[in-house]
Amino acid sequence: MRFTAESSSYGLVERDFIVGGVPGVLWSPTRGVDRAPLVLMCHAGGNHKKHPAMAGRAQRFVTDGGFHVAVIDAPGHGDRPRTAHDERELAALQAAKAAGEPEGPSARRYSAYLAELAVPEWRATLDALQELPEIGVDGPVGYFGINLGTAVGVSLLVVEPRITAAVLGLHWPDTLAEKAKRITIPIQFDLQWDDEDISREAGLALFDAFASEEKTLHANAGTHHELPRFETDSATGFFIRHLSRANHTPAETNRR
Amino acid sequence: MRFTAESSSYGLVERDFIVGGVPGVLWSPTRGVDRAPLVLMCHAGGNHKKHPAMAGRAQRFVTDGGFHVAVIDAPGHGDRPRTAHDERELAALQAAKAAGEPEGPSARRYSAYLAELAVPEWRATLDALQELPEIGVDGPVGYFGINLGTAVGVSLLVVEPRITAAVLGLHWPDTLAEKAKRITIPIQFDLQWDDEDISREAGLALFDAFASEEKTLHANAGTHHELPRFETDSATGFFIRHLSRANHTPAETNRR
Repeated sequence: MRFTAESSSYGLVERDFIVGGVPGVLWSPTRGVDRAPLVLMCHAGGNHKKHPAMAGRAQRFVTDGGFHVAVIDAPGHGDRPRTAHDERELAALQAAKAAGEPEGPSARRYSAYLAELAVPEWRATLDALQELPEIGVDGPVGYFGINLGTAVGVSLLVVEPRITAAVLGLHWPDTLAEKAKRITIPIQFDLQWDDEDISREAGLALFDAFASEEKTLHANAGTHHELPRFETDSATGFFIRHLSRANHTPAETNRR
Repeated sequence: MRFTAESSSYGLVERDFIVGGVPGVLWSPTRGVDRAPLVLMCHAGGNHKKHPAMAGRAQRFVTDGGFHVAVIDAPGHGDRPRTAHDERELAALQAAKAAGEPEGPSARRYSAYLAELAVPEWRATLDALQELPEIGVDGPVGYFGINLGTAVGVSLLVVEPRITAAVLGLHWPDTLAEKAKRITIPIQFDLQWDDEDISREAGLALFDAFASEEKTLHANAGTHHELPRFETDSATGFFIRHLSRANHTPAETNRR
């Protein structure tokens, strides 16, 4: 892991890095901390590691949770080159959009392809991040990824025991449900009730597939791109609950 | 409205009151506030106004939100007498439970009956509470009620414009869906994914019925009585978001 740039503002230290040729960014609290939990965050399709949605969430996770937050560019995204395959898939997505057709079939196929490439990159990134003294090999690790981030996340979680809590959502069950059945960590899952691409049945089926004893669905009124900003509050609280306690106790329940 | 007792502990002032013969409790911040929003909270069937689930939630709403929280005993509950009708319905519920049969049919019928009686009681209680200078006639009012509290709440919200945000859940759509279609205020709705009495389809149908532009479903793994305690955090945040700002702006969304 090589750091290529560092800056500091709004209570965050931002460090650009490269691991195995993959560019990423690590946001950390400005106030030095001996050890803090790490949240891995995967951007959505068509975005990149420093998209405002990523930077905005990272700001909350760092300042409210005291976490480190790392994002890497997905293959073909951000500062990474596009292959001929990427170009063809992007053209297919654009064509569907231009024709007013559902983007789902193209998005699902391309996401599955990207996830397969991204999983080893994320594992190598996590290896490198855990060598930093402010993160460490035995610290708690969470994962945030919706949309493409869920295609990557489900594929990553099923092989990566170091991640112990994840916020996912906005994806189809097709290639992911079978993997989700082997995932048992606490999950918070976002679904848009009026998603024009992902049917309710599809979204609910993926949520249902997780084997997790603690899993929470947050379904909000609104279309695919209208995920409310307050879900970032929920994600922050979720990670604080699961990553900030050394000895996590099972969720207590309220008898009514 | 007549106050019958007052005590103070754990940062709350607790005042027992009676309005029109109905006993209630008002929890308020100990530190005097000129004006603070009010949350009306309805207990679940078989409970009462000071059940630990009520007192526990009130504690959070008061200390974290700075709100006043009022609960009244439902007809036939808590300090109120049971009629012969109440006794028959309770016997039917007990018989279903003892026989291992679903409590749903009895619970739905009895809840609908209680809601009809409770709505005018809640409106009279709100009238009286708003005469208190620390609440006032033009302050924000929220509503919390799951289970029986949703039967009462949906029936109340449809006739009560003073309530501008509500947390509901854990109920069937049967008698409520038509009313819910006329409700447009922000709603947070709790559903238990493995509820042994209320099917997923039934719970989702009631959530779906609300006409609210902002509505959020929180579906958690677990049975009917296993609503996670962290949903109280969510409810607290929801009320802070909707009741604590004088000029509420529509939920912002995060493009990903």
